[in-house]
Amino acid sequence: MSAGTVYGVGLGPGDPDLMSVRADRLVRGAKNIAYFRKKGRMGQARQIVEGMLRPDVKEFAMEYPVTTEIPVDDPRYNEILAEFYESCTSYLRQLSRLEDDVVVLCEGDPFFYGSFMHLYSRLKGKVPIEVVPAITGMSGAWTATEQPITWGDDVLTVLAGTLSEYELTKRMAETDALVVMKIGRNMEKVCRSLKASGKYNDAWLVEYATMHQQTVRKVTEIKEEIAPYFAIIVVHGQGRRP
Amino acid sequence: MSAGTVYGVGLGPGDPDLMSVRADRLVRGAKNIAYFRKKGRMGQARQIVEGMLRPDVKEFAMEYPVTTEIPVDDPRYNEILAEFYESCTSYLRQLSRLEDDVVVLCEGDPFFYGSFMHLYSRLKGKVPIEVVPAITGMSGAWTATEQPITWGDDVLTVLAGTLSEYELTKRMAETDALVVMKIGRNMEKVCRSLKASGKYNDAWLVEYATMHQQTVRKVTEIKEEIAPYFAIIVVHGQGRRP
Repeated sequence: MSAGTVYGVGLGPGDPDLMSVRADRLVRGAKNIAYFRKKGRMGQARQIVEGMLRPDVKEFAMEYPVTTEIPVDDPRYNEILAEFYESCTSYLRQLSRLEDDVVVLCEGDPFFYGSFMHLYSRLKGKVPIEVVPAITGMSGAWTATEQPITWGDDVLTVLAGTLSEYELTKRMAETDALVVMKIGRNMEKVCRSLKASGKYNDAWLVEYATMHQQTVRKVTEIKEEIAPYFAIIVVHGQGRRP
Repeated sequence: MSAGTVYGVGLGPGDPDLMSVRADRLVRGAKNIAYFRKKGRMGQARQIVEGMLRPDVKEFAMEYPVTTEIPVDDPRYNEILAEFYESCTSYLRQLSRLEDDVVVLCEGDPFFYGSFMHLYSRLKGKVPIEVVPAITGMSGAWTATEQPITWGDDVLTVLAGTLSEYELTKRMAETDALVVMKIGRNMEKVCRSLKASGKYNDAWLVEYATMHQQTVRKVTEIKEEIAPYFAIIVVHGQGRRP
């Protein structure tokens, strides 16, 4: 008896034209798709593939039971999410047992801070599973700034805005090139760290990179206290350039 | 009078199926292509697009005058390379003046340690120029290890193997997730730093990620003193996972 394959398909930064040829083919051919989203939203991953799906596709929306309502260091946060991932996994295993392939739509690259990893770690070894890498959101962001991110021997550090102000500042100060993800409500803290580390004047904020709403601004021009979830901060390296 | 556009097109890690839909379209439609290569070789970028090109395509191979013959800290290295980039640039400007578009084939993502940046910085503002981001070699490498690279708040540090042993060791010790590029002749030094930083037993060496020659091995199993240019070391983060 054969089993269906679970494909973790990276969609890239947002522009469907930047999906890989393989991702494009898998999405257009999919009989079953699954994707994460916040309750009451269409979901960014689902939005990206709008207009590309088979008319008879079966959709499975995996709605986060919590996003920012409970702090991540609350033990209940992990419990609730673990239960959620278990129930998603169980549905995907069921599809696989029925010999149905399913394409899990992933924003960015599935193995780079992606939610799909929580399904992958539970499914690996139990069902056939394949991951299709993709262009990361940060590649989309630094391309939008129209400047290379790393030259020569430049060190690149990627930080989550959820880190402590101390950690952020220390690591920002020590790197050549910098990317900050997961900014959202951490915008003010991230800005204080950029200032303290001497990187503030060279930092760019890119929102919705490669999408039609894309904006690219110097961080010094930002007035908002909360950045959208799809915002990425970029500081370019200044390494060797013959 | 209109001018031709210079496209810096990222080809991704090597598998043509992982090129973006846009890159695929630009490569297949190109009347002019240009690419870097080592003298006497076909060149990795050119190899990736084999079988995809128009029969009447005009090819411009940009052959590095030096690669490892002169150390990078020798002042002649910069001089020779600067002259080389100037001459490539002048050819691309000429094409643009003739209203011809040209696709510059770039391995990986053009703005991430890519040679195209040296043309881009010379052409920007002078001719119409567009950059197409791509899947990085490191995304190809961590996907090949079948393990996510970053979870939760993991810090990712990307290092060039050309850094000093002291720098490598210090930065390896301080990070959660690690990628080392440009390994080649620096393999022994990189291994000493991995040992000194406590990351040696968890490090993977991926060669030719996503290509048919792909190999994935624990670094502890490596006997060779020189890794191929297309080798990437990966150490996975161990962050929060509900």
